Amino acid sequence: MQQANKKISVLTQPSLTDAAKLIEKAFAQRRTLIVVGACTVNYVGRASSTLEPGERLLIIKADGSLLVHRPIGYEPVNWQPSGSIFHVAADAGALLVHAVRSKPRENVKIIFTSVLLVSALGLEDSGEFLLFASEDDMHRAILLRPQLLEPGFKPISWEKKVEPGFVDVYGEDKDGKLVVVEVKRKTAQKEAALQLAKYIEPIKARVNREVRGVLAAPALGSGVQRLLVSLGLEFRALDPKVCAEVLRKSENSKLENFL
Amino acid sequence: MQQANKKISVLTQPSLTDAAKLIEKAFAQRRTLIVVGACTVNYVGRASSTLEPGERLLIIKADGSLLVHRPIGYEPVNWQPSGSIFHVAADAGALLVHAVRSKPRENVKIIFTSVLLVSALGLEDSGEFLLFASEDDMHRAILLRPQLLEPGFKPISWEKKVEPGFVDVYGEDKDGKLVVVEVKRKTAQKEAALQLAKYIEPIKARVNREVRGVLAAPALGSGVQRLLVSLGLEFRALDPKVCAEVLRKSENSKLENFL
Repeated sequence: MQQANKKISVLTQPSLTDAAKLIEKAFAQRRTLIVVGACTVNYVGRASSTLEPGERLLIIKADGSLLVHRPIGYEPVNWQPSGSIFHVAADAGALLVHAVRSKPRENVKIIFTSVLLVSALGLEDSGEFLLFASEDDMHRAILLRPQLLEPGFKPISWEKKVEPGFVDVYGEDKDGKLVVVEVKRKTAQKEAALQLAKYIEPIKARVNREVRGVLAAPALGSGVQRLLVSLGLEFRALDPKVCAEVLRKSENSKLENFL
Repeated sequence: MQQANKKISVLTQPSLTDAAKLIEKAFAQRRTLIVVGACTVNYVGRASSTLEPGERLLIIKADGSLLVHRPIGYEPVNWQPSGSIFHVAADAGALLVHAVRSKPRENVKIIFTSVLLVSALGLEDSGEFLLFASEDDMHRAILLRPQLLEPGFKPISWEKKVEPGFVDVYGEDKDGKLVVVEVKRKTAQKEAALQLAKYIEPIKARVNREVRGVLAAPALGSGVQRLLVSLGLEFRALDPKVCAEVLRKSENSKLENFL
């Protein structure tokens, strides 16, 4: 009982059969598993791959997701999302970790010929992850979900090159007026309002319809609201955290499509 | 000297200062470093993020790439490509691992309040990774690099729905003839040739120009070349490994743009 409650079990340079016992226990207890050793990896599924012998880090998480990492590079060389079923078997010469998924049918076999480290970890992690977008992210979020700016807003182009610089987001409102948007990631100060006013002038001179200037930022600095009004400009509250969430949802689906 | 040559150093539930010593040694010796413990993570760069307290796995590789993994999910919660400079510092209450990159300016701070496991590993891995594409991958590779099929080939659409099924790749050759391509990942047998012949007939009936049928596969089974000739069809050798390489190059750049 004591053993089962331990947060961590570690074996350093174990025999393959001892390693297999701890790996099996980690699967049964749905622990985070780390195995480091010399291995080959074979994958068969939508595509297929073979990784020739070398020393790598295998991670199998509590949800059944799997990663094989080489000593170089931030990307895993093989990976599987959650949902695999795992088996482990060992004899004196080889330790096999086998992951099988059914939809799509995928099959990963990792065969260790020696093990440097095995660890089974009972990790607790309920901490929240808060992502705050960059200004570029905020532009992309508006393009993805234009109602972040206002109902009926239709973006026309992004970072349209206009003298004397770049407009962040450029579009049309529900009444057909042109909208020029300046985005700030932090509390917008007077410079942001003046920058927007400067960008808008040549556009007004060129087009034959009403042009609105909108400063989008999480908040306005002292005196900036008054300056905006005097320049004929508007403010929209836009939270980088909300933008990050919009992108995260969209990019998760994009990333899943991509992978 | 003995110590420096060891393939693996492991500390289980060390004090923060002992953990820091081994981490510092791992940085100095450019080893693969694993740290498991309770931590927070703060990132500031193009965007910014905060990960509230919880138990995670930190991996820092020999090339300086960094990954923070939670106990659930195949994606890292924080990551950095190679090229960071690392610092470590500890007192009785906290252990800070700090990664700084200059282009773009990025900053990751991982603060551990307790450590379950630290391991520094001297991993050797020169094994080759061989990836063999799926049929879908092969379609995409042809769309990305049409000369894989033949010089001057221009794809028109992909999996164009035609009776009685789907055409894999559909295009125009350098002389303006329509080309219908059937792709096979393995040695193509007679069924593949007959399938292509069947797809081509309704297209021929509908269009007012010459239609070529091309079976693209790594090789042909016995008797298939003769069957193709008798059906007025052609064969192109197309290697799934070459297709995988085409995609890998393209997707690496796509993934980098995406991330």
